[in-house]
Amino acid sequence: MSYRGKHVLVTGGLGFLGSNLAIRLVKEGARVTVVDSSVAGCGANPFNLAPVSSDVRLLPLDIGEPALFRDSIAASEVIFNLAGEISHLHSMQFPERDLQLNTQAHLRFLCECVTAARGIRVVYASTRQVYGIPDSLPVNEDHPIRPVDFNGVHKAAACAYHAMLSRTGALDAVVLRLTNVYGPRMALNVPAQGFLSAFFRRVLLGHSLEVFGDGSQLRDPMYVDDVVEAMLRAGDANPLPSRVYNVGAGHGTPIGEIARVIAKAAGGRQVTERPFPDEAKPIDIGSYVADCSRIERELGSKPSVSFPDGVRRTLEYFEERLKHYLGAAYAGG
Amino acid sequence: MSYRGKHVLVTGGLGFLGSNLAIRLVKEGARVTVVDSSVAGCGANPFNLAPVSSDVRLLPLDIGEPALFRDSIAASEVIFNLAGEISHLHSMQFPERDLQLNTQAHLRFLCECVTAARGIRVVYASTRQVYGIPDSLPVNEDHPIRPVDFNGVHKAAACAYHAMLSRTGALDAVVLRLTNVYGPRMALNVPAQGFLSAFFRRVLLGHSLEVFGDGSQLRDPMYVDDVVEAMLRAGDANPLPSRVYNVGAGHGTPIGEIARVIAKAAGGRQVTERPFPDEAKPIDIGSYVADCSRIERELGSKPSVSFPDGVRRTLEYFEERLKHYLGAAYAGG
Repeated sequence: MSYRGKHVLVTGGLGFLGSNLAIRLVKEGARVTVVDSSVAGCGANPFNLAPVSSDVRLLPLDIGEPALFRDSIAASEVIFNLAGEISHLHSMQFPERDLQLNTQAHLRFLCECVTAARGIRVVYASTRQVYGIPDSLPVNEDHPIRPVDFNGVHKAAACAYHAMLSRTGALDAVVLRLTNVYGPRMALNVPAQGFLSAFFRRVLLGHSLEVFGDGSQLRDPMYVDDVVEAMLRAGDANPLPSRVYNVGAGHGTPIGEIARVIAKAAGGRQVTERPFPDEAKPIDIGSYVADCSRIERELGSKPSVSFPDGVRRTLEYFEERLKHYLGAAYAGG
Repeated sequence: MSYRGKHVLVTGGLGFLGSNLAIRLVKEGARVTVVDSSVAGCGANPFNLAPVSSDVRLLPLDIGEPALFRDSIAASEVIFNLAGEISHLHSMQFPERDLQLNTQAHLRFLCECVTAARGIRVVYASTRQVYGIPDSLPVNEDHPIRPVDFNGVHKAAACAYHAMLSRTGALDAVVLRLTNVYGPRMALNVPAQGFLSAFFRRVLLGHSLEVFGDGSQLRDPMYVDDVVEAMLRAGDANPLPSRVYNVGAGHGTPIGEIARVIAKAAGGRQVTERPFPDEAKPIDIGSYVADCSRIERELGSKPSVSFPDGVRRTLEYFEERLKHYLGAAYAGG
C-alpha cells in the first residue's frame, strides 16, 4: 500500500474509528485532513487525535455543509467517509435526527464529492445492522438488506448512494460492513454505543459485567487496528473486484464468553446475566457472525489480533487515559 | 372485500393512482379522506377527483406535517400511502427534494401513524425501481435491492420503514412494488413521468411516437383498475401472508410493441426509433418483467384488462377531457 504523500480526507476523524485511522495514515506518511463537527452523541473526542495533533489538519465542519470544505474535497486523493451516528437505540428515539446525520448529510457530501472530485475512491464505513436478523450464519455480502431499526435503514440508504454513484462512474466507492469494533479510543461515555463500549466502561470503573439473556448470542468483535488495516486496503486496492465487503473477526464468540474474557483481563470482575431490557428487544438481531472470506480473498485483509490480546491492549490504553474518556468534556452528551 | 362504511385515508389522492383508488373506494361504500398537498411535479390534479368531489373529504396538507391531520389518521381503519415523487430523472437533478418527499415525509407520517393508530394496516405504493438492473427475468420479491437512481434509493428507504415498523407490530404494513401503470388520470403534462405518460400525451396531441433504442426492451405495463384491485386486496387481506408483493402484468412486452399498440389505437400514428438520450442512460435498467405469482397465489390478485383494451379505455377517457390534463392549471409545473 502506498499512502506516502497522499492527500487523504477522513470524515468523522475525531471518533473512535476515524482517529485510529488518521493516526495510522500519518504513520504511513499521508497528508491527513479530518472533518468532524463533534455532533453530540456521535463519539467525537479531540483527545483521540492527541498523538498526531500537529500532523493532521482538523476542520471542525459538518459533512452536511460540504461547500464549506469543497477545496479540501477537491484536493483529496482518497476519502474515508466515517462520519455518522452509530447508536441503534438513539435512532429509535430520534429517527429524524438519525436520518439527517446518516442519510441527508451523506447525500450532500457525496454530491459535493461528485462535483469537486469526480471518480474519487471513497471508503464508506457501513454496519452489519443493515442485514437485520440473519437468515443463517455466517452472513455474506449477498444477504438481504432488512434493517430492524432506523439506524439500519438510514445507513442502508447511504450505502445505496455510494453504490449507485459508483455504478455510473461518478464515484469509485467501496462499502465496508463493519461488525462490533473495539479498541483504544472507543467512546466509553457515550450512551447506547453498543455492548462492548459498555463492558469496557464498567470494568474500567471497577464494576461487574451484565450480560443480557443467557449470553449465548454470537458476535464477531474485531480489534480496531485490524479494521483500520482493512480500510487502508479498501482505499488503495486497484483493481477493486467488489464494492461491498464484510469486515469482522471471521468466527463467532458467545457474548457471555466475550464478557468473561474482558472481566478476567480487567483483574477478575464478576459476570451476571439479566433479562433483555424492553427497549432493546425489538431491535435485537440475535446471533451474528460475518462471512469475511470476500475481503480476505480479494483484498488480502484478515484479522491478526486475537480477542484476548485486543482486550489487553484496549485496557492498557484506557487505564492510563481514563479521565479523557469518562468526563463530560467532549461532545459525548 | 368489505370497505363499506370503513374510514380510509389515501395519501397522494389527487394523483393518478390515488384518485383512481379513491373513486373505487367511494363505489365500495368507504368513507374516504384524501391528503394531498399538490407538490409541483408530483402529478396532483384536482380534476381527477371530479366524479367523487362531494363524497371525498380533501385535506390539502403535506404528509410531512402529519400533526395537522392527526385526528384523521387516528380515525382511519386502513391507510393507502401513495404520496410521493415518482420521477427518476427529477431525482437525479434534485436529489435532496426527492429525499424530502420520498423518505423524510414518510418517516414523519409513519411515526405519526404509529402514535395515532398503532398497528393499522398501511398499503404503501413502492416501485420496481428499487430492484435496479434485474439479475434475470422475471424479477421476484427476493431480488436484491440495488437502485440505480436517487428515487429508487429513497423509495427503498421508505419501503424499509414500513417493513421495519411492521416487524415490531407498530404498524401492519404491506408494500406493493408497482411496475409501469397507465390509464385514466395519468399525469400527462408532468415532465419525466415515464414513457407511457409521454406516449399517451404525444398521440393525443397528434404526434408520432419515439422509442429509445431499438424498442426491444421489455416492460409489463398494468392498467390502473387492476392495480387498484390489487391495492384493495392488500388493504383488506387477513391474514396477510407476506409484506411485499410485486404488482405487474405478469408478462413482458417490448416497448416497440407497446408503442405500436398505442399508435394504432390512436388512429395510426407513426413510431420511430431514436438513440437513448444521454440523461436517461445512467439510470436505465434494461428489460423488466415482474414475477407476480406471489400476489396471485396469496391475495388472489391478477390483472384482467388486456393491454389493447386498457389503451382503448385510456384514450377514450382523455379524448373527452384532454384540456384538464394539458394545461398549466394544476401543480404539474
